[in-house]
Amino acid sequence: MQKRSEETRRGIMDAAVQQFSRTGYEAAAVNDICQSAGVSKGAFYHHFPSKQQLFLAIIEDWLKTIDAQLFTQAGDVGNVPQSLNRMAKMLGFVFEAASGQLPMFLEFMVQASRDQAVWDATIAPYRRYQGLFEEMIEKGQGEGSIRPEVNAQTTSWVLISLAVGILLQGVIDPNMADWNEVTRSGVQMILESIQRREA
Amino acid sequence: MQKRSEETRRGIMDAAVQQFSRTGYEAAAVNDICQSAGVSKGAFYHHFPSKQQLFLAIIEDWLKTIDAQLFTQAGDVGNVPQSLNRMAKMLGFVFEAASGQLPMFLEFMVQASRDQAVWDATIAPYRRYQGLFEEMIEKGQGEGSIRPEVNAQTTSWVLISLAVGILLQGVIDPNMADWNEVTRSGVQMILESIQRREA
Repeated sequence: MQKRSEETRRGIMDAAVQQFSRTGYEAAAVNDICQSAGVSKGAFYHHFPSKQQLFLAIIEDWLKTIDAQLFTQAGDVGNVPQSLNRMAKMLGFVFEAASGQLPMFLEFMVQASRDQAVWDATIAPYRRYQGLFEEMIEKGQGEGSIRPEVNAQTTSWVLISLAVGILLQGVIDPNMADWNEVTRSGVQMILESIQRREA
Repeated sequence: MQKRSEETRRGIMDAAVQQFSRTGYEAAAVNDICQSAGVSKGAFYHHFPSKQQLFLAIIEDWLKTIDAQLFTQAGDVGNVPQSLNRMAKMLGFVFEAASGQLPMFLEFMVQASRDQAVWDATIAPYRRYQGLFEEMIEKGQGEGSIRPEVNAQTTSWVLISLAVGILLQGVIDPNMADWNEVTRSGVQMILESIQRREA
């Protein structure tokens, strides 16, 4: 029973992503989402009290996937530069998850600019990522792998900006460049400049 | 007379930016744009054969401002690293121009994902910027300021990604960080890693 319910929920979310991508969030009707998911309106509202709640659940679902990857790679194996290089490789998984999702990605941003609850759900995690990078750089300074005069906060924003820029371009123009290589190379360049040089 | 006509055109474009930001492009009616610009429908269609042409004119107008700044700074004063540092400072002007324009910025992207002509107008210049950076890096290798083994193409995508990421965040979350400092610092880091080191 539990499994069945989870499948229904998942089916509604998949149908909603299709519908939001096609018509935009505002124009998407709950009726149409129900029809394409093959569920009753009762079942829909059992899982999601409103279209907004459904939308927030989709954002949360995306972020959970990214979080799981990101925070695992930030872990304790090797020093901080090694962890950052592993995280750079990981962005490839994010690209795969984001592939073909440009319309939905844009819907997130359009709604975030119009709806405080969506804004909070979108902005909060991204500030958390910045905090994660800042802590990693400070840890690197503690372990002696990163130069002590490096500004951890500014550097973490540089890393986030690079990731956001690559992600956006990877979604808009996937075949224009080898985005995995751009990520690897960009992180490598930043690391070269912040790593403690061998005496 | 020429001046009057230019003012009318400008007034329509300003009213359209307001309208598109408020309602989105699809829902924006030419009637409402005319009313808020204080022009007749005849005057509107004299300047813009369609709503799409008006939209394209707004994109072109934004890009002209950016181009003027960017290509001036790329010029011949000093070596390539110095030019790139000047261009980094210039991104501040782009932030000012973009300030408060998030909804319009998102409309560009939403329409680009739905309309081939808008896609072409949005993507073409951004590929041109990548070409500009690639040429600059090759020029730097020629003049000996940038290491010969640096991959000019990948590095130019790293620079573009950083700029796109900072710009998007600066529009979404202007007060979160000092984006001018993040730009300056990020470009400095990339330069440190690609510049020829003193022997």
